[in-house]
Amino acid sequence: MSEFDAPPAAGNGLLDRRVFLRAGIIGGAALMTANATALEREKWMQMPGAGMSESGAPSGHESHIVRSPIGSQPGTTGAGASRTPLQFLDGVITPSRLHFERHHSGIPDIDPAQHKLLIHGLVERPLTFSMEALARYPTVSRIQFLECSGNSGTSLASEPVQASCAQIHGLVSASEWGGVPLSVLLEEAGVKAEGKWIVADGADAAMMSRSVPLDKIMDDAIVALYQNGEPLRPSNGYPMRLFLPGWEGNMSVKWLRTIKVLDRPAMTKDETSKYSDLQADGVSKLFSFPMGVKSVITSPSFGLSMGAAGVYQISGIAWSGAGKIRRVEVSADGGKSWADAALDAHVLPKCLTRFRSAWRWDGSAAVILSRATDEAGNVQPSREVVLKGRSSAAFYHYNGIQAWRVGADGEVSNVYV
Amino acid sequence: MSEFDAPPAAGNGLLDRRVFLRAGIIGGAALMTANATALEREKWMQMPGAGMSESGAPSGHESHIVRSPIGSQPGTTGAGASRTPLQFLDGVITPSRLHFERHHSGIPDIDPAQHKLLIHGLVERPLTFSMEALARYPTVSRIQFLECSGNSGTSLASEPVQASCAQIHGLVSASEWGGVPLSVLLEEAGVKAEGKWIVADGADAAMMSRSVPLDKIMDDAIVALYQNGEPLRPSNGYPMRLFLPGWEGNMSVKWLRTIKVLDRPAMTKDETSKYSDLQADGVSKLFSFPMGVKSVITSPSFGLSMGAAGVYQISGIAWSGAGKIRRVEVSADGGKSWADAALDAHVLPKCLTRFRSAWRWDGSAAVILSRATDEAGNVQPSREVVLKGRSSAAFYHYNGIQAWRVGADGEVSNVYV
Repeated sequence: MSEFDAPPAAGNGLLDRRVFLRAGIIGGAALMTANATALEREKWMQMPGAGMSESGAPSGHESHIVRSPIGSQPGTTGAGASRTPLQFLDGVITPSRLHFERHHSGIPDIDPAQHKLLIHGLVERPLTFSMEALARYPTVSRIQFLECSGNSGTSLASEPVQASCAQIHGLVSASEWGGVPLSVLLEEAGVKAEGKWIVADGADAAMMSRSVPLDKIMDDAIVALYQNGEPLRPSNGYPMRLFLPGWEGNMSVKWLRTIKVLDRPAMTKDETSKYSDLQADGVSKLFSFPMGVKSVITSPSFGLSMGAAGVYQISGIAWSGAGKIRRVEVSADGGKSWADAALDAHVLPKCLTRFRSAWRWDGSAAVILSRATDEAGNVQPSREVVLKGRSSAAFYHYNGIQAWRVGADGEVSNVYV
Repeated sequence: MSEFDAPPAAGNGLLDRRVFLRAGIIGGAALMTANATALEREKWMQMPGAGMSESGAPSGHESHIVRSPIGSQPGTTGAGASRTPLQFLDGVITPSRLHFERHHSGIPDIDPAQHKLLIHGLVERPLTFSMEALARYPTVSRIQFLECSGNSGTSLASEPVQASCAQIHGLVSASEWGGVPLSVLLEEAGVKAEGKWIVADGADAAMMSRSVPLDKIMDDAIVALYQNGEPLRPSNGYPMRLFLPGWEGNMSVKWLRTIKVLDRPAMTKDETSKYSDLQADGVSKLFSFPMGVKSVITSPSFGLSMGAAGVYQISGIAWSGAGKIRRVEVSADGGKSWADAALDAHVLPKCLTRFRSAWRWDGSAAVILSRATDEAGNVQPSREVVLKGRSSAAFYHYNGIQAWRVGADGEVSNVYV
């Protein structure tokens, strides 16, 4: 099968996803015209290389792959965010060094030998847990995403901001999170019948505090101790954080210090001054916990350039707070027609899922989109639908479809469709 | 349910794995006798913390979690290995900085702008691929283990070596590996009918070279470009390596430079002087490709200490080159009785799988073991069975059951059973 008889899957060059398993359609390689064995022996083959090390580092040739932008609010230390460079990554695991950050008063330098977790409030037995005590408890690990509720808020601007995928959508990452089910610790403390919520406090100077319904805690909340196999990084809550799969990131309180069982939400500063959603009618939705179904094409995206016309891979990530991703569709004609993308084999609940489509770009301007559907049947909405009924001051929970325009010059820009 | 009515699952204190979902059995926490809200406000809550960074680092309190030992053969640079500190990790993902290393002449410092992959030999069209050309091709990612065929060779010693889990078993790691199916590139080059094998050469000074049957290549081999989401680390083959899921690690040739299609194996220095298995009858098995079914308890293990008698988690990893792990059994009485361990939810093919058991340690000496079974029905053998028929000079492919003895003093030692 050649490029020219690959079956189309949708308009403007989207190819059947099975094309990726066939030969002869890409043409990106250079044919050898000379003696095929005449590769030069490069200088790095002519002497022994570097030795082993205790802790490896990325190649110096990839030093541009860092979190960005690093933004603190004026006059503060560490009240701001840094973002995952999605446009340079593949797969779904985010290296821990590149996991996004969002802090309210910087990263506390906690001594794990002194740190304790207190469980109190409406319980039979108030308990404290040292790190040593927690190490005795059962642990579970799961590979799941974490997304800041403010992610993609840039897309609310009246005109599309020309910025990288990291800058617009980089407040989402995925890791293997390991820790002790909070249900086990709460059962050990004995929750009283009137206990319906908890409030979790962090040990940072802002004492970040959020209320969580007890049902969620007993379902799948963990006190996370591990991220991608090793102890949490300080920027992700070392030595322990709350982790609430699929829910807005700020509720997964970092540097977790106390859990208090209550009969109602605590109405903390962090859930009244922030993290509520103002509607067009002036009423604020106070608790918007799960993150909506969402996807974004990471390649090509703003800042990356296409080469010559020909077959390319369109690749991106999809996720949903409701469970697994069932389907991702891609369009190369601005949404007039859609084709199913291929999904990498590990489609896990409340995790990023990598999707890929084959696209024969004809070298003219085109608008590419992706649209995710989760196992609950939720379909990622258009920007227009997301904005409907929201106040113009509302900021959180933007999950609209991202459109990228590929110009005839191969440059990619952010557009609204 | 208290510790005392938790149902037993096997001898010497192994508890039903459902115990992990129940309350009140661990007793590791300290009851608060004073005012439960009277936690001291630690010093790190009294001032703003550190700001954001482009690339995060582990906590300084965890600086002992490094690869070890770092061993080069005398008089060489980078001909040796460093090992993953399994005893300090949880889950299955290995942070890329801690992925084991095994080099034959160190880590070459390759300029990706100059590096090319050549495909030649029994093909219609010899091809070279620059990094830019490869970026056009379809990519897949999978979370899979990589194990050096020499892993656990320490267990062949006539007396059990007193060494950490890293030192004995740390030449295995798991990552999300992403790259281009080699089948796609070979089909583009057009493999001739007589092509049955390939030989892959690396761009290191040792020009590490291995022969691989074409069937494996067309099944699931990739030219890996990504590890845990970001470009490969130099110690893992940057900018590209061969990756052969489930097969002995040295065949996943790092710094991949050429693929030559052949009608038979190339019989390279690396597959004749090394990586063949001498049998007791003097005949050497030349090609032992898949890694056998295997497991090891990582906690408790040598170098870790138990506290007071009580309920503990036994945790470890299991894997098989044949596919998924179906079952892991744990014994706390030296193999007289066994109980099924709980497996973390993400049981993926040719990947590490994390297992966990609850154990009520009565404070007396005990020998703990784990035994894995894969989806093909292969059961991890005893040490005795592994050794049967092998020459005492044979070194590779040890997958026998690891036994740890927990002493009455809580110290853990390596024993043979």
